[in-house]
This record gives sequence, structure tokens and C-alpha cells, in this order.
Amino acid sequence: MAINNFINDEESSAKSRVSPAVIKRLPRYYRYLRELLQNDILRISSGELSKLMHVTASQIRQDLNCFGGFGQQGYGYNVKYLYGKIGEILGVTQHYNAIIIGAGNLGSALAASPVFERRGVKLTALFDSSPDVIGRSVSGYTVKSIDELEDYVRNNDVSIAVLTLTKDAVRDMAERLAGLGIKGLWNFASTELNLSNKDVVVQNVHMGDSLMTLCYELTK
Amino acid sequence: MAINNFINDEESSAKSRVSPAVIKRLPRYYRYLRELLQNDILRISSGELSKLMHVTASQIRQDLNCFGGFGQQGYGYNVKYLYGKIGEILGVTQHYNAIIIGAGNLGSALAASPVFERRGVKLTALFDSSPDVIGRSVSGYTVKSIDELEDYVRNNDVSIAVLTLTKDAVRDMAERLAGLGIKGLWNFASTELNLSNKDVVVQNVHMGDSLMTLCYELTK
Repeated sequence: MAINNFINDEESSAKSRVSPAVIKRLPRYYRYLRELLQNDILRISSGELSKLMHVTASQIRQDLNCFGGFGQQGYGYNVKYLYGKIGEILGVTQHYNAIIIGAGNLGSALAASPVFERRGVKLTALFDSSPDVIGRSVSGYTVKSIDELEDYVRNNDVSIAVLTLTKDAVRDMAERLAGLGIKGLWNFASTELNLSNKDVVVQNVHMGDSLMTLCYELTK
Repeated sequence: MAINNFINDEESSAKSRVSPAVIKRLPRYYRYLRELLQNDILRISSGELSKLMHVTASQIRQDLNCFGGFGQQGYGYNVKYLYGKIGEILGVTQHYNAIIIGAGNLGSALAASPVFERRGVKLTALFDSSPDVIGRSVSGYTVKSIDELEDYVRNNDVSIAVLTLTKDAVRDMAERLAGLGIKGLWNFASTELNLSNKDVVVQNVHMGDSLMTLCYELTK
């Protein structure tokens, strides 16, 4: 009992110690650690991880020491433990359920990709408003009519909605989803959502920003 | 002539003054300025832009003063001029040509989206290796066989290749494209590319990182 309490205290204090800048870098560590695990590499030094990830070893130590006690002198990091720990901090162990709104090309590409499963997120349904798409099978899901959205969300535990809609349609849909109690929006419409309900967490994906950075690098 | 020289000097020194941190933020300014233009808003103060973009007015002044002389006391920023200037710095006026390798759902979604046109990039062809896809029409492009890649790149001016391939296939393809002299890779396979040719610029898009950040925010 005392040990359990101690562990919980450790965890919550580790979590609160992690700065937003480190949090932003954690998904990249998570990806690299997964690749190491897939290649049966179970321990790695900060020096080796540094070479692989093209960041300094001191940056790695600084980032990962936020959690406390991962690295061991002369042993390196325990890849599996670190992978699990970072996953836990990032919410992978929460097993959130997600739905996709918009079953066009992008929605279908996301449904077929391992992007959800790898982060512990379970895709449970796809919705669309087009009669041409409703009823179609996409990666094993039968696309539902958007008219069924309210019923579905009421009867299922949905935390995340993935929005692959046009810019014009996305704002109303985001408010509708927020009204249904959905707490996380992953928005692929190239516009930033500022919802009236501030409890809703939004991640806007701006693929064009990355293309512009590429063009800048080419021009330089 | 003297004026032209002066302008060119100004431009190149402005460009070299822009820090990488500011460059990273410019695509977002670019998006907001485009929306303002679309709504016929031709000038805006740093205070108004601050409210819109949810960053401090002093951050905006700091970022945009890197270029020198955009803001005018009591007048604000000239939206059209600033939009053009940022576009120029980011390479929009270079009018790069791009091809997509992989005409599946994601490739088709990108081909149909305004993401290229908005950054001054011209999509010129899509390639695939699957006989089911080759010859199909995608957003007005007839999908070419990947066997035609070498001929196509030799006979056309292609700066950017967009990679919507699986992780297993992407490394060989990236080396093949680099060998053909393609200078920019926009990589959607969820793996980081480290090419032998260091002149090739790579932008890796990791959509999963954004999903993880969303999960983290939900868990917090």
C-alpha cells in the first residue's frame, strides 16, 4: 500500500515536471523507440539514440531525465520501459475511441493507416453526408449517415472526432460535436478552430505549413 | 537601377536576418493573411492580428519586424504586401513543380486539395506501381506507371516529389528520386528519411505526432 502510494506520487510529480517543450518532442521519441523495439533492440545509450535521432546526447538526457531514473550509468535506457512510460504520459494507455467525420479520400486514407492503433486509439466508425458514400465499406467499416451521429455518440463512448471536411463545413460540425460532449477534435480542414466550448481540445493539422517549409528550404 | 539595387540589397539582408524560429511561424501568418485577403481586409494592426491568431501583439511585431518596415504607426500592416512578401521568402514565387508517388487514398486526397496551388506549387503528375491504379483519372491527372518515372523526370522540370508510400517502399524510392536530381521530398510515410545525398531537402509529415499531442491534452 505504501509502495503503491509512493509510485503514484512519483508518477504524478514526474508528469507535472515535464515541460511543454519536452511534451512536444515526446511523440518523436515514441516513434524511434517503437522502431527499436520492432528491431529487438532492448537497451540503448543516450549516445546511440543521439546518432539515430540527430539530436545531441545531452538534449536526450535532459528530455528523458524529466521522468526521472530511466537512464542507468553504463547500461543505457531500457527501451521497452521508456516506450511504455512515454506512451502512458501521452495518453496511449487511455484507449480513447475515435470516429471519422468525412469518408472521402483523406478519411479513407486515415482509416486504412496504422496511425490510430499505434497510439492506442480505437477507430469505431466513419460518417459522411453524401448518399454516394453512406453504406460503403471503408477498411472494414460501413460508412454511416451523418444523421445517425447524435444517436451513435449517445450510445457509444467517443472521445475523439477526426474532421476531414471542407473549411466551410467544419466549423458547424465542430460545434455540433462539442455539443454532443466530444472532448477532442483532430482537424484536417485547413483552418484553425476556435470553439465556444473551451473544454474541447483541438489539434489542427496544417499539411500546407510543412510544404511551405520545404519550399523555403529549397529556395534557400 | 540604383533603386532596384537598393531593393535587392534590402531583400537579401532581410532574408538573412530571419531566424529559423520565425521562419517556422511564417506559414501560419501566411494562412491568416490569406484569410484576411479573402475577406477583403487590406490592413490590420498588430493588436487585431494578435486577437485573431492568439499570440501576443509584441510577438507579432517582433516576428514581422524581422523583414523591416511592414508596420506603420497608426496604419497597421498592409495585408497584401505582407502576404506577398512572406510568400516570396517562403518560396511561393518560385513556382516549383511537384509529382506525387503513390496514387492511393492519401495521394488522391492531396491531388484534390488546394494545398499545392495555395503555396504556388504546381502538381504535374501522379505515379503508381499498381496495375489497378495506373491509367485511372485522379483529379484530372491520368496516373502514370512508376516505370515512366525516369523518362518523365528527365523531360520535365520537377523539384518536389510527394511520397505517399508504405514505410517499406519509401527509402528505395527516395534514393531513386534523389538519384534523378529531385531536390525536395515531402514524405508522408511515417518514417524519417536520412538520405545519402545531403543536398536533398526532406520534410517528414508525422500525422501521428499530432494525434498523440491530442491524446496528451485529453489525458491532462
